[in-house]
Amino acid sequence: MKAEVVHTPALLPLYDLKDKVVVVIDILRATTTMCVAFNTGVNKILPVSQPEECLMFKEFDFIIAAERNAVKVPGFDMGNSPFEYENPFLNGKNIAFTTTNGTKAIKLAKAMNPHSILIGAFLNLDALCQKIQVSGKDLVLLCSGWKDKYNLEDTLFAGAVLDRLKDSCEMPDDAALSALLLFEQHQNDLEALVRKSSHANRFKLLHLQTDDVSFCLQQNIYSVVPEMDGEYLVCKK
Amino acid sequence: MKAEVVHTPALLPLYDLKDKVVVVIDILRATTTMCVAFNTGVNKILPVSQPEECLMFKEFDFIIAAERNAVKVPGFDMGNSPFEYENPFLNGKNIAFTTTNGTKAIKLAKAMNPHSILIGAFLNLDALCQKIQVSGKDLVLLCSGWKDKYNLEDTLFAGAVLDRLKDSCEMPDDAALSALLLFEQHQNDLEALVRKSSHANRFKLLHLQTDDVSFCLQQNIYSVVPEMDGEYLVCKK
Repeated sequence: MKAEVVHTPALLPLYDLKDKVVVVIDILRATTTMCVAFNTGVNKILPVSQPEECLMFKEFDFIIAAERNAVKVPGFDMGNSPFEYENPFLNGKNIAFTTTNGTKAIKLAKAMNPHSILIGAFLNLDALCQKIQVSGKDLVLLCSGWKDKYNLEDTLFAGAVLDRLKDSCEMPDDAALSALLLFEQHQNDLEALVRKSSHANRFKLLHLQTDDVSFCLQQNIYSVVPEMDGEYLVCKK
Repeated sequence: MKAEVVHTPALLPLYDLKDKVVVVIDILRATTTMCVAFNTGVNKILPVSQPEECLMFKEFDFIIAAERNAVKVPGFDMGNSPFEYENPFLNGKNIAFTTTNGTKAIKLAKAMNPHSILIGAFLNLDALCQKIQVSGKDLVLLCSGWKDKYNLEDTLFAGAVLDRLKDSCEMPDDAALSALLLFEQHQNDLEALVRKSSHANRFKLLHLQTDDVSFCLQQNIYSVVPEMDGEYLVCKK
């Protein structure tokens, strides 16, 4: 099995996703939040590019959720904090969801016809790795980054996946090697490092609930692995 | 002073270079080779995009040098191994030079009108850092990468520069923080790490002179800092 890391969606055109498993990563916070939603019992999530498009799904009995620049967009039911998605009210509901980076990465990956698209977060790390291994396919770890720039927390998570799979995969690219080195070096002080990241600083400047950072770094508290099925994210049994 | 790291030229459109000092980095091997050439006494180097364009300068009494995919292009005077550029015959000569990644990065940076463009390599690390500090300008460390993908050795060098400047600069981006962490962790085993990189493997597969790797990682053996002056790289006194 071959494993590659794409640091930001802006670099996606350099990669071939055909017949590969793509894991979309947006630790702070879209892919973390999606795992929480499915663990709560959400039926399906429709990733949407723009808030305007997302709004239209209100009429079709979707919960509508939108985040831009780390805050909830006014007029929407929900934002992008994982805590919001623990609400049992969401059980059985459908959500239309748009975020600054994560849903964009999903849409771009989908347009490149991969074998499958899985959603990765520290919350479901081991379950995700198991699913990747069962697939037997080559792997692309797609970091959502921040507005097409590199970010630390998504790269650390890519490194965490590679750390678990390294005995069974080759890593031809330096981006994968570098992500693995970063994780190996910092696996015991992940939170301290992520708190130095630009996105954690963005939270601080916005006076956002910084418990989100601790929450998003919890490992293996869920076994759900959301994946794309047609236009929707679902959790296959 | 603010310092940013651009992992590959493909990400350059996300950055503003205006009034900034840009350091172009292609450790294996273009920017290393350029430092060797100026240390040997070359008069000026014209970075050129394509071999076809480079060939034309033969008539204007330039030495013509071209590398693609790590090997010398047939029909040219020289390739891209630093050892070739230690030849005293080059003293006072002008070179037209095109390489897979380094000269492309220089041309792209130039098109974005920065304050200045400097050439960085481990060979001239301290002299380069001194020149950056004297400038007092914000800094962009531009890694040439490999065909627009991330590479390890250029990122390690960006980290080495930041390690020297960290007390006098802020690093708002995660790309800079990550490069610094990578260098700090591996500064005592740089060569072992770079030998694991994809480009060192490429050299091995091509049966190229792998002493190039050791040569390119020597620190501070030169005080030359090539920089762009109009269309040419020169060494200002």
